[in-house]
Amino acid sequence: MDKTYTIAIDAMGGDNAPEEIVEGALLARDKYKNLHLNLYGDKGKILELIGETKQDRIKIINTTEMIEMGEEPVKAVRKKKDSSMVVAANAVKGGSADALFSAGNTGALLASGIFIVGRISGIERPGLLTVLPSVDDSKRQWVFMDVGANAEVKPSYLYQFAVLGNFYATHVLKKPNPEVKLLNNGTEEDKGDKIHIQAYQLLKNGKQLNFTGNIESRELLNGHADVVVADGFSGNAALKAIEGTALTMFAGLRKILVNGSLKTKIGAALVKPALKEFSSVLDYNNAGGAVIAGVKAPVVKTHGSAKAKTVSNTIGQIKIILESNLVPDITKYVDENKDQFKIILEEK
Amino acid sequence: MDKTYTIAIDAMGGDNAPEEIVEGALLARDKYKNLHLNLYGDKGKILELIGETKQDRIKIINTTEMIEMGEEPVKAVRKKKDSSMVVAANAVKGGSADALFSAGNTGALLASGIFIVGRISGIERPGLLTVLPSVDDSKRQWVFMDVGANAEVKPSYLYQFAVLGNFYATHVLKKPNPEVKLLNNGTEEDKGDKIHIQAYQLLKNGKQLNFTGNIESRELLNGHADVVVADGFSGNAALKAIEGTALTMFAGLRKILVNGSLKTKIGAALVKPALKEFSSVLDYNNAGGAVIAGVKAPVVKTHGSAKAKTVSNTIGQIKIILESNLVPDITKYVDENKDQFKIILEEK
Repeated sequence: MDKTYTIAIDAMGGDNAPEEIVEGALLARDKYKNLHLNLYGDKGKILELIGETKQDRIKIINTTEMIEMGEEPVKAVRKKKDSSMVVAANAVKGGSADALFSAGNTGALLASGIFIVGRISGIERPGLLTVLPSVDDSKRQWVFMDVGANAEVKPSYLYQFAVLGNFYATHVLKKPNPEVKLLNNGTEEDKGDKIHIQAYQLLKNGKQLNFTGNIESRELLNGHADVVVADGFSGNAALKAIEGTALTMFAGLRKILVNGSLKTKIGAALVKPALKEFSSVLDYNNAGGAVIAGVKAPVVKTHGSAKAKTVSNTIGQIKIILESNLVPDITKYVDENKDQFKIILEEK
Repeated sequence: MDKTYTIAIDAMGGDNAPEEIVEGALLARDKYKNLHLNLYGDKGKILELIGETKQDRIKIINTTEMIEMGEEPVKAVRKKKDSSMVVAANAVKGGSADALFSAGNTGALLASGIFIVGRISGIERPGLLTVLPSVDDSKRQWVFMDVGANAEVKPSYLYQFAVLGNFYATHVLKKPNPEVKLLNNGTEEDKGDKIHIQAYQLLKNGKQLNFTGNIESRELLNGHADVVVADGFSGNAALKAIEGTALTMFAGLRKILVNGSLKTKIGAALVKPALKEFSSVLDYNNAGGAVIAGVKAPVVKTHGSAKAKTVSNTIGQIKIILESNLVPDITKYVDENKDQFKIILEEK
């Protein structure tokens, strides 16, 4: 029988909590037989949603506080000790759960991941990792890191993001020899500011990395890389520009098709299924959640507006991460390559 | 009669030079009766394209060198003293032309603008300014600066980009009270790295700027600002992500519509005109060229792949810039506000 895992679920985080979170958890429980799901939140409300009789492989842990979306993250995590997110993170720290899921405040989850679950020894800065599709070849998914945790970076952080992203690509996406690229403002080796120029050299000389140079954000969706390394500031800018452009274009498209001439409307009805299929390629709800990479257990964030299906898919993603042995393998690697890491840290 | 202007045109820059550049110049000459166009390049080739009899308000200045697209910009500008771009830039410097147009190497044009045409006294760093549309309200164009000239910035540079962008919005886009925003990784006042946090304060306290806070790249196409200020690194990342996503999506869309079922194909034929109109909203060829703002004359770059019509439109954009008195008004403003600028430079 499959090994079983326990996932701590922040049932109160996100715009649709606890309803959609709980419903998603139930979907995941039914789908993934080796998962135990511990729900942290308002026990009364959660029980009402689940019902007394359906608690197979589900445990509810009552918490009395909630971190809101707009709260200052570090302060909230420090103060709200009985919030669903903080109690769930402590459960992971204490070993009663193997991973943490939340749809809540991203900054607070980052703080919970880094300060409660804890950094892997040797990793300077955990970062936010996400998986995106390519449109040219929609089967080529790629890892993008950091997309927002570290607005300020050093070259060594970028190197570590590459190592972490590379592990995610091999373990979770099952890519044999991931092609790693650095997000930069030109493809030449000397492009970018000092930090990116130095990072290029670290990546080029890095052992066991299949580093193939810089990539411009213009090419991100065209399937040219398996792992794209970025500082959190421009990675965030590029990610949100992609999301925003895709959303705005679909909205604009819908508008002109719906408000068009009769001819356009008839045509729109005919192409609708094809358009729907196309839009699903770029739908980030299908791509899974954002992972806080570099901490001692999988900590995964889904969009605040996630519905039950997305919650369930993200729990499925956590299951794959756990089964891939991602975190133990990273920990072992960093430990075995301490000296190499140390040199990189000291040099820069 | 309208005041006349002379524009120096690098006839050899770009993928389609000199053919499309010369044809575009002829279109512009016929359309804009107060422009004189001086073409710098291979006189024999250009004459062949124009014909001996059609040289009304056109002058050809023979040059013997060319800066290629892939050349290292600063070195190329320094070495190729008889290149079409450098000779044209020197004509602007010497006063025999009022503005400079090129479709060539962007970095080389930046270097020509900054080192030959020269910075406006008091401006620390000229930057690359571009105008983009909003999809939500396609009539609301907005100014984006810096989109690639300065990978490394100080807060004071960002402040100056705002002043320059603001002038462009009032003068060229004729916006009465432009709303200025700072591109950042969150909307709160304390978001971003140290540089952006400090820039926020400078912008907030800046006189005569209608600064309304941060904007995330996700919102760029939604018409929330008239001027968006960015460091050249993340501005470039966001701009190219927008362009890349739009291009990739249109290509993907075309593919599914063309390769779809018979029903989809019929529908595609019916919606084609509406799609074409929509795609033109996001077509940067309509939005004009990128302006090197902060130098002593208009220096404008169009895309390397520009065709005659785009060349002509960009020359039309230069005409508007000249007629708006943009550069003299910036120069006067910076001079009159020397003390304020000095304080900003010294404080940070």
